[in-house]
Amino acid sequence: MNDELWQLPIDELSKLLAHRRVSSVELVEAYLARIGRLDGELQSFVALSATAREEARAADEEIARRGPRSPLHGIPIAIKDNYTMADLPTRAGTAVEQLTFPMQDSHAVSRLRAAGAVLIGKVRMHEFAWGNVTPPCRNPWDLARVPGGSSGGSGAAVAARLCPAAMGSDTGGSIRIPAALCGVVGLKPTYGRIGRSGIVPHSWSLDHAGPLTLTVTDAAHMLQALAGPDMNDPAASHKPFPDYAARLGEKINDVRIAVIRNHFFDAVDEDVSAAVEDAIGFFAARGCMVRDVSVPTLQYGLGAIFAIELASSTAYHDRSIAAGHVAGFADDVRDLVEMGRFVTGPDYLKAEQARMLMMNEMAQVLKEADVIVVPSSPLTAWRIDEATVDIAGQQESVLAASWRLTYPFNLTGLPAIALPCGFDRRGLPISLQIAARPFAEDLLLQVAHHYEQAHDWWKRVPPMAA
Amino acid sequence: MNDELWQLPIDELSKLLAHRRVSSVELVEAYLARIGRLDGELQSFVALSATAREEARAADEEIARRGPRSPLHGIPIAIKDNYTMADLPTRAGTAVEQLTFPMQDSHAVSRLRAAGAVLIGKVRMHEFAWGNVTPPCRNPWDLARVPGGSSGGSGAAVAARLCPAAMGSDTGGSIRIPAALCGVVGLKPTYGRIGRSGIVPHSWSLDHAGPLTLTVTDAAHMLQALAGPDMNDPAASHKPFPDYAARLGEKINDVRIAVIRNHFFDAVDEDVSAAVEDAIGFFAARGCMVRDVSVPTLQYGLGAIFAIELASSTAYHDRSIAAGHVAGFADDVRDLVEMGRFVTGPDYLKAEQARMLMMNEMAQVLKEADVIVVPSSPLTAWRIDEATVDIAGQQESVLAASWRLTYPFNLTGLPAIALPCGFDRRGLPISLQIAARPFAEDLLLQVAHHYEQAHDWWKRVPPMAA
Repeated sequence: MNDELWQLPIDELSKLLAHRRVSSVELVEAYLARIGRLDGELQSFVALSATAREEARAADEEIARRGPRSPLHGIPIAIKDNYTMADLPTRAGTAVEQLTFPMQDSHAVSRLRAAGAVLIGKVRMHEFAWGNVTPPCRNPWDLARVPGGSSGGSGAAVAARLCPAAMGSDTGGSIRIPAALCGVVGLKPTYGRIGRSGIVPHSWSLDHAGPLTLTVTDAAHMLQALAGPDMNDPAASHKPFPDYAARLGEKINDVRIAVIRNHFFDAVDEDVSAAVEDAIGFFAARGCMVRDVSVPTLQYGLGAIFAIELASSTAYHDRSIAAGHVAGFADDVRDLVEMGRFVTGPDYLKAEQARMLMMNEMAQVLKEADVIVVPSSPLTAWRIDEATVDIAGQQESVLAASWRLTYPFNLTGLPAIALPCGFDRRGLPISLQIAARPFAEDLLLQVAHHYEQAHDWWKRVPPMAA
Repeated sequence: MNDELWQLPIDELSKLLAHRRVSSVELVEAYLARIGRLDGELQSFVALSATAREEARAADEEIARRGPRSPLHGIPIAIKDNYTMADLPTRAGTAVEQLTFPMQDSHAVSRLRAAGAVLIGKVRMHEFAWGNVTPPCRNPWDLARVPGGSSGGSGAAVAARLCPAAMGSDTGGSIRIPAALCGVVGLKPTYGRIGRSGIVPHSWSLDHAGPLTLTVTDAAHMLQALAGPDMNDPAASHKPFPDYAARLGEKINDVRIAVIRNHFFDAVDEDVSAAVEDAIGFFAARGCMVRDVSVPTLQYGLGAIFAIELASSTAYHDRSIAAGHVAGFADDVRDLVEMGRFVTGPDYLKAEQARMLMMNEMAQVLKEADVIVVPSSPLTAWRIDEATVDIAGQQESVLAASWRLTYPFNLTGLPAIALPCGFDRRGLPISLQIAARPFAEDLLLQVAHHYEQAHDWWKRVPPMAA
């Protein structure tokens, strides 16, 4: 196999597979070799499939016989450890032995298998998706730094080219934060667009499934396989969905862009800020109508998402708490799960009311604009030993800072994508976030793709992985 | 005016008005005279309109000039004291002076005025709709007994023929319980069918607006005027609605009836039980397919509605509690409002999950059946001095007993109607409850009307009002 293959995104690999210039077995071998070589330091994988080579061989045979089922056919993909699978155990990042999860494919895993993907292993996550650090996983751009979380393993593995794509899940930013910190693309689709049955719940009204990939086109390919109804997820949408790759090449000069200037720019690292302003300038230069707007109810967002996330998470973990299993949780997660009991029912309901106000204001913004452009994270990857960071001259907890710009799109359920838009003075990735109207992922991907095509930040490989 | 006019339902009064054989002014005078004569004892009204006579005169002129706008044109109607009105203050049953509500027409009041109704006054309710007693209002069938609640004034006033219809609201049974105890018709439509903006909220995911009337036909006329979208109630449905009176006369022999035998018949007074079994036998004799069914998740209903109602109510009253205004509440209501703080967010969410299970089971029942037939209340009107009652040999709190059979249809949002189906050994009204699929009020009314036509229980007038 060509030594450069691991640098290619799914969109190119799938063409090579279709033309039988490379085999799925070769791809699996190449990625497994990279995992063997690099993941001792990175610690992004928690389990490897014992049957990936056989599955790859079957994929190669079927492609030879009938052509590929989809752009994912024969492509090695990693799964976050909160998706159940028939062939690999699910731990959801916890060490608590008493907690067991079924050995059966979750909805999204079934969909990827149906599209022909070869699921090579499970990647590390912050325990129960309740954190943005993902210990002991490291950031491939600087091993002294965190990959973000909770889908930290997904971000690190894709950034280090240990797989071309990985599944993540996003309750307050858990796809987009590691995507931002690791310099890859993270797509949180509209609430309900991808069914979540078989994913260990965190907060069901905020939980989203979605992919982390190298490119926007690859995110479109992944969404194509994953979108659609899920009989076992009551929130899953039955709305039809388009060919997400079809519009990617279209012009964006008639796209109207809103930049939400409150909240999203309140305290942002200056390198991040400069890179995001450059991106906004790029869109303006391409003829997009760019307008600054304000969403005042965002001031209630942190209280709202904390009340909802804490209460929902504890509703799920209550039985474990009662049974004493929570003693096995890491301290940070145990604190959060137990804190949920102190959210009152009235608090929860007021949080849902604030959320509705935010949804209404966002809908107003998206009447006058087609997409929203803001930063994904106010800071780049922080050091593992840092609990607080200096952002624009102010000390802030890394946990508070890291999800500040992502959770608004969990509360509102709007689709949002994080994609690289530069590097800071230390060589760490910076990320642009684009959001759109519910179920307008096609437009979202089109705008993001247009930016990506003109910049190609994704082609930079972390030195440790080069 | 004919002395017997006050005995007539809206459907007949409206024909007399249309043919100008009676005037709206005469009706208003007649009812005001009855209120003056009877309501000193009954205490169902809390305020009378100062402009009702003028409005009646205007209605008469318009009817003379252009004919009636609707069957409600010129009809005197009373409004529960939690609906705001432009011309009468709203107290929602509370004595707390600091709490003030806007002097503007609520959505439902606007709709009734648009239909030409003459709103003659406001009727008494249990404080903040949090109770089933409605002190100091009395039951016209026995002044030593309660009218039920929280729309107790509405039930008492219609039963005593102080008005032919009154608006109520129903969070756990507050329309159907007083309808049952006072021997009138109470309709709780599907959740969202009648807009609730301008009604003092109790528990917004459980609150329903609806009418109390003498007959099922009158309930159809009221619903016709009230149904439809409400821009200021996010839960209000935009679904089109039919002519509710159109199907009333149709046969019911192909209607499939489910009798939910668990929960609804667990502890029911034997006179109530006998009357309801007679009604079920009536439907079977008319050719309906009657089937006994079970809805096991109803066992979680009380926990679910308590968690939801307590938390939601406290979310609304929290500011008053914080400001110390709650000290002015009646003890029973203060207890409930303060208790809501002890419902945790996780409890609330688990209650919503239980509710979803109940909705799914009810939907299953209504795949095999068109309507559900059960009792409205396990007991008839209790004495004002009774805190507990003996039902089928067991002591039970009157509050626990009185809403036991109504709240399942608040949790599930299904339309439900309470209508008289007999009298107990003490001469107190017994009530039948019929529920249907969401937005199937037309079928619900058709079945109820068919029963009513064959029995005419509604024509009995309480002795004090005769």
